[in-house]
Amino acid sequence: MPLNRGGWNETEKFLKAVIEILLKHIKDSNDPNSKVIQFYQPLELASLLDLNIPNSPMPLAQLLKDCSETLKYQVKTGHPRFFNQLSTGLDVISMAGEWLTATANTNMFTYEISPVFVLMEKEIINLMCQIIGWPEGERDGILCPGGALSNAFAVNVARHYFYPRCKSLGMTDMPRLAMFTSADSHYSIRGAAALLGIGVDNCIVVPVDDRGKMIPEALEEAIIASKEEGCIPFFVNAVAGSTVYGAFDPINLIADICEKYGLWLHRSFYLLSVSPPRRNTQCSVCLVRKEGLLFQCNQMCADYLFQQDKPYDVSYDTGDKTVQCGRHNDIFKLWLAWRAKGMLGYEKQVERLMGLAAYVTAKIKRTPGYEMVLIQPEFLNVCFWYVPKKLRHLEAEERTARLEKVAPKIKGKMMEAGTTMVAYQPDKDKPNFFRLIISNPATTTEDLDFFVDEIARLGESI
Amino acid sequence: MPLNRGGWNETEKFLKAVIEILLKHIKDSNDPNSKVIQFYQPLELASLLDLNIPNSPMPLAQLLKDCSETLKYQVKTGHPRFFNQLSTGLDVISMAGEWLTATANTNMFTYEISPVFVLMEKEIINLMCQIIGWPEGERDGILCPGGALSNAFAVNVARHYFYPRCKSLGMTDMPRLAMFTSADSHYSIRGAAALLGIGVDNCIVVPVDDRGKMIPEALEEAIIASKEEGCIPFFVNAVAGSTVYGAFDPINLIADICEKYGLWLHRSFYLLSVSPPRRNTQCSVCLVRKEGLLFQCNQMCADYLFQQDKPYDVSYDTGDKTVQCGRHNDIFKLWLAWRAKGMLGYEKQVERLMGLAAYVTAKIKRTPGYEMVLIQPEFLNVCFWYVPKKLRHLEAEERTARLEKVAPKIKGKMMEAGTTMVAYQPDKDKPNFFRLIISNPATTTEDLDFFVDEIARLGESI
Repeated sequence: MPLNRGGWNETEKFLKAVIEILLKHIKDSNDPNSKVIQFYQPLELASLLDLNIPNSPMPLAQLLKDCSETLKYQVKTGHPRFFNQLSTGLDVISMAGEWLTATANTNMFTYEISPVFVLMEKEIINLMCQIIGWPEGERDGILCPGGALSNAFAVNVARHYFYPRCKSLGMTDMPRLAMFTSADSHYSIRGAAALLGIGVDNCIVVPVDDRGKMIPEALEEAIIASKEEGCIPFFVNAVAGSTVYGAFDPINLIADICEKYGLWLHRSFYLLSVSPPRRNTQCSVCLVRKEGLLFQCNQMCADYLFQQDKPYDVSYDTGDKTVQCGRHNDIFKLWLAWRAKGMLGYEKQVERLMGLAAYVTAKIKRTPGYEMVLIQPEFLNVCFWYVPKKLRHLEAEERTARLEKVAPKIKGKMMEAGTTMVAYQPDKDKPNFFRLIISNPATTTEDLDFFVDEIARLGESI
Repeated sequence: MPLNRGGWNETEKFLKAVIEILLKHIKDSNDPNSKVIQFYQPLELASLLDLNIPNSPMPLAQLLKDCSETLKYQVKTGHPRFFNQLSTGLDVISMAGEWLTATANTNMFTYEISPVFVLMEKEIINLMCQIIGWPEGERDGILCPGGALSNAFAVNVARHYFYPRCKSLGMTDMPRLAMFTSADSHYSIRGAAALLGIGVDNCIVVPVDDRGKMIPEALEEAIIASKEEGCIPFFVNAVAGSTVYGAFDPINLIADICEKYGLWLHRSFYLLSVSPPRRNTQCSVCLVRKEGLLFQCNQMCADYLFQQDKPYDVSYDTGDKTVQCGRHNDIFKLWLAWRAKGMLGYEKQVERLMGLAAYVTAKIKRTPGYEMVLIQPEFLNVCFWYVPKKLRHLEAEERTARLEKVAPKIKGKMMEAGTTMVAYQPDKDKPNFFRLIISNPATTTEDLDFFVDEIARLGESI
């Protein structure tokens, strides 16, 4: 072990024992009455676990125990009552795909060492572009390590499109660039501005309406103001499913403005990210409607990796399209899970989730103590307050001040109880509220009934 | 399926069938006489595979067939005769860790949803800093998606250290920054300069000596020249194990120069990346000897993720230390594999690989037709030419010109034969040569004997 040529039986026995532990975890996660989390404070948990790297090797039996212990204290993100993140639920096909990926253990930079996976990535990116409606000859993309870096790489590509010399010369002598995103967009857009040397202050935050959608008139005003200050607007991020509210920025109006001012339009895509094929962390893609631009922007032509005299068509060596060298294979799980669902299955899945979101919204609206943050959710995010009885008749100002503390207290009780998990956050002048996201295919109406009752129960216990 | 509450038996049966396929692949990969690759040209391979996403769901039996077909045409990177990349070999413990990771399917941004994995990452980063010799209070780091982005994030941190206002204001009004790296360093350092808006031209390439090590005097000259041109030097990358030759830049002399000119010293770390615990793609870390700087540089304080009023110590929410939001869990496989090896096992592993590198170097030196590129390899990279008989007595100029074409031709034959795989590249005035990297723990002296004979056999057949 590992992989000594004589010890195959031992290796096989160990791996099968690991699988038994994993299967048990999946089965347990699938039981709605099991705990979502066995919560301990960090120092407590550290004292319960043996995380130390010993001088001598640990025997296989201990490694199996390590696996069990790890899963025992880990949050069950596939549990039908886990609603804490956008990425909830465990697609077992996708998971099996990731098992294969780990076993194939290859890198995505060249066709030479990833022939099948490179072809799959090409196929899927082409399909995604086709779904979006981009014609042949205008389809390109690359899988990226998470949405935040996808966004950063997209900003980089847009900058390269307008200022190709920036790659060589840097931004020092360039005009001040300005980029635009809605007040409700994901923080990674501002993060991209920081990373790329554009500066967070030059990432202009455009106000949203009361449904969380970017106001197109405000975008145009911001663009004009920015130009008057001597900046060069170049990039607009339109959100399709905002992080907190699941709101969709009005894409057509924003596209018109981008066309009018000659700006790059980027769309943070949310739709596929809640679909089953995209569920296992991580899986993100950066799609670009200019073939060749990813290569031009990112290629460094390392001659120890991307030699041009290889015995095959080196346009399949896609690694030079990205900033990464070593790149985790995220394509196989996506491809396999998408095969399992089929194109229609994916539509049906989102429809079912939309139905569940409507179901729980109706239930929340008719349950005493609950208040919706946005009256009508647009997508799968259902944001609400639970107002405990003792707060319900307070004056507005005191009520708001005390409500701010309710969600964190309920969350604390919830984690102790381990019965469910959901995230909370404040937003502008709105005190802390819960954000329930329906994206777990294992969730049923019974789980949502339980959830609504449980929040009320916990809310009255604080 | 997936995870319907009634269908557990079917789910379990499917997952176990997947595991049988994976176990067969591992076993086959482990047989030195099996093919490393069944090579097809891209269009041929595309015609052999059914990569299409159908409208209707594919049955489970078809998905199992998909898994088998994928592995059939995939390169066996764990094969004892696969030497094509730095990351060769399959550590089955690490692989099992990755299986668990896929099953736990969580994100690394908060303690809330990754309690065990966040503690593990803290433990391992602390241990790594300790091994390097950094005192307590000067240890920080975060796992990153691959070495290229680790390098980019390190440059970003260094820039933030000297110019914290760049995060807000961008680089437009900043002085022109200059960074330095050896001519033999990995292309990602220049990639970082491009991504961050510093510019590739401001990433100064410092000459190396005939062993591939950065020349300290040349570094100092380059720093002085850069200052005279009005640039502000801020960052030096010292390579510990260069990509092609495995050379180590003279760290102490470079550190003295960095201290003299007040520059940030970054070390691209290679040592751990060939050690067994780091084998499964991807696994990289960015370590920083300034506690708090990663947070300051990268945090965006999204209040929907990194709320400060959570029911636990939020310093454990390490996600705001990185540019990523969704972040693949790379820590568990590393932790588990390192536990399996122990601290001493890891030392022993590298020693054994060094022994194999010395063995094959000696064999190459005494085998007719072979020529070493560097007479004495410093680490695990063994670079050589094979000169076919018909070229051996040519004049130098013609010999060099024809030698340039030999390695690609041998490589083509090799991929057709599927008996072994190794990378080649040119370097400056040196024509194409092979780069054999000994980092696969499954490799034995017999495999290396085979390799040397096989290259000679293929070399005479072209």
